[in-house]
Amino acid sequence: MELSDLRNKIDDIDDKILDLFVERMNICRDIAEYKLVNKLPVMQGNREEQILSRVRERSPADLADGSAELFSEIMDISKGIQQRELYSKTAHILEPKLFLPKMARVIACPGIIGSNTEIAVRKLFPTQEIRYMNSFDDVFRAVEEHDTDFGVIPIQNSTVGSVSETYDLMAKHNFYITSMIRLEIAHCLAVKKGTSFMDITKVYSHPQAISQCSEFIANNSLIPADSLNTSIAAKLVSDSSEPIACICSERCAEIYGLEILNRDIANAEKNFTRFICIAKDFYATESSKIISVSLSIPHTKGSLYRLLTKFSMNGFNLVRLENKPIAGTPFEVIFYLDFEGRYDDIRVCALMEELKNELSYFKFMGNYSEII
Amino acid sequence: MELSDLRNKIDDIDDKILDLFVERMNICRDIAEYKLVNKLPVMQGNREEQILSRVRERSPADLADGSAELFSEIMDISKGIQQRELYSKTAHILEPKLFLPKMARVIACPGIIGSNTEIAVRKLFPTQEIRYMNSFDDVFRAVEEHDTDFGVIPIQNSTVGSVSETYDLMAKHNFYITSMIRLEIAHCLAVKKGTSFMDITKVYSHPQAISQCSEFIANNSLIPADSLNTSIAAKLVSDSSEPIACICSERCAEIYGLEILNRDIANAEKNFTRFICIAKDFYATESSKIISVSLSIPHTKGSLYRLLTKFSMNGFNLVRLENKPIAGTPFEVIFYLDFEGRYDDIRVCALMEELKNELSYFKFMGNYSEII
Repeated sequence: MELSDLRNKIDDIDDKILDLFVERMNICRDIAEYKLVNKLPVMQGNREEQILSRVRERSPADLADGSAELFSEIMDISKGIQQRELYSKTAHILEPKLFLPKMARVIACPGIIGSNTEIAVRKLFPTQEIRYMNSFDDVFRAVEEHDTDFGVIPIQNSTVGSVSETYDLMAKHNFYITSMIRLEIAHCLAVKKGTSFMDITKVYSHPQAISQCSEFIANNSLIPADSLNTSIAAKLVSDSSEPIACICSERCAEIYGLEILNRDIANAEKNFTRFICIAKDFYATESSKIISVSLSIPHTKGSLYRLLTKFSMNGFNLVRLENKPIAGTPFEVIFYLDFEGRYDDIRVCALMEELKNELSYFKFMGNYSEII
Repeated sequence: MELSDLRNKIDDIDDKILDLFVERMNICRDIAEYKLVNKLPVMQGNREEQILSRVRERSPADLADGSAELFSEIMDISKGIQQRELYSKTAHILEPKLFLPKMARVIACPGIIGSNTEIAVRKLFPTQEIRYMNSFDDVFRAVEEHDTDFGVIPIQNSTVGSVSETYDLMAKHNFYITSMIRLEIAHCLAVKKGTSFMDITKVYSHPQAISQCSEFIANNSLIPADSLNTSIAAKLVSDSSEPIACICSERCAEIYGLEILNRDIANAEKNFTRFICIAKDFYATESSKIISVSLSIPHTKGSLYRLLTKFSMNGFNLVRLENKPIAGTPFEVIFYLDFEGRYDDIRVCALMEELKNELSYFKFMGNYSEII
């Protein structure tokens, strides 16, 4: 038989499968309706296990896993559609305030003037008052307690990865992400005017900046030392009488009157950092298109895959997936998922409700756009 | 209509779908055979797109995403089965050496005697010679250049997450993981005998240990300083005439004759670290059951989900999923996947070949068991 004949056969089968699938989905709708009227839960006992073991039994042995996978998927889609039916009637529609940066008054920023985070703040809030904070934790707290309207914090770097401290704090505080900003970061080695490279004893900076420049530091046998912030490191160099150096931006070196000895000292030629803008309330705009959620999933076989199926079946594209350990547990994790979607899409609301009901931990973290 | 009637209808439909699915898979086998005989690639042009757009057109609008998802899954399973057919005939079967720890002679370990990594080495290799290395990079190099038989390196901590440096080095070196060891880590604050808590100026340790004890450090206003290793920090304290402290294990404090001022100072009550044992050659045992791979996936919608489908459809359970940025790129990542499977399973070999052929970057990193 020729390839085209085989393909025609496949097309015929696909038509039949599609018709059966649509029929099945219509019955699922009736079931959803029935459950709603009779106040029954969407998930019921071991119905799924029954269906899967029946499929495995009826299936040829070498197709058993594939068939079970298929029906697991069919049931996930069914359930998704039932959830959508249920929640489209009852779902709590998310009601954001409109994010208008120009209406903000006070913005929390870690460190002091001259940091990369300050540049990120200025991209979003060109003229607003900036309140500088001693720690990332203080920024989250200022936002949580409504002491400032918004706060800006680095979350990810393209050379060394996610900022662990920010993820730790995200698990502890209540807030929403209102915006994401991407900056290209160029690191310089700066000293007090007149200090020669040969005399430098230590080089101060934020641990992330030190990691991002680790090769330069090692190749030049410099001793790294941690600061809260690149700008605090620059101020330290400016205030010190010792021949110390710092890693900071060109602008930061200017602000503190430092001399730049080396430019672009990061390990990678292109070095980017993402910052998030956070608020106590849920803000969004017409152009919000990324949704962030955090959640934990059960310790059962295939649970991550089945979680992702819920996004995939709705056509929600996953753009980032991170996981962070839960301290005190033997490698249990919280997942951080970013996907393309909008708060005013009923399918999004239904999925958020479903996850909130099904998972032991689930948090909706905002709907925003990324500024590049 | 009652719930049981609706469910019987679903069962009837499922039987029909399963029969059609099995029929479809048999045709797929014929197609795989045809392609093998005629030396055609498994993937051909835009056949998949054609099928999906046909399905979307024929589907009711509100089921279009769900239907497309279903057929995307059906095609992934088809392709998986075709790949299995092809590669079961041609696949390069992985041929490991037998991992017999007692046959090893020399093991590379970062730092000096007394570190937590040394404890991990001793769990696997009770009596072998340990060669101490100045850096994690040196351990990878010693293994890569066959200077030592194996090397042991920390990879993940349950409080602060993955060890970035290890992931960076994993992307640069050629090696296989031969074993994974989990240790519960109890951090102590240790000083030279006679030093009082009030006098401590700085506390030295590995950056991971410092992060794991960050709350104790902050609450006691101590100044943290980085060392390569907890044991190097302990030796520094032992050799120094300054009133400095270190964070290390009880055993390490004993080795360097230090006094323990505080025990269990980690932020989390339970604190675990995972170590990997690496080798230049591929070793495995009868009990190997975890496979590690690293790979990159294309920037297309749903690509992560479709990758995971390949594992799910074979029944390979995913146990870990990490991603690390590729330095120099704007947030492109390498994925690190650990799944349950064995090198001598033909489905595993077929999937490894498939991924190697389909992805721009793919690395098989070993098949091992975790010692808890």
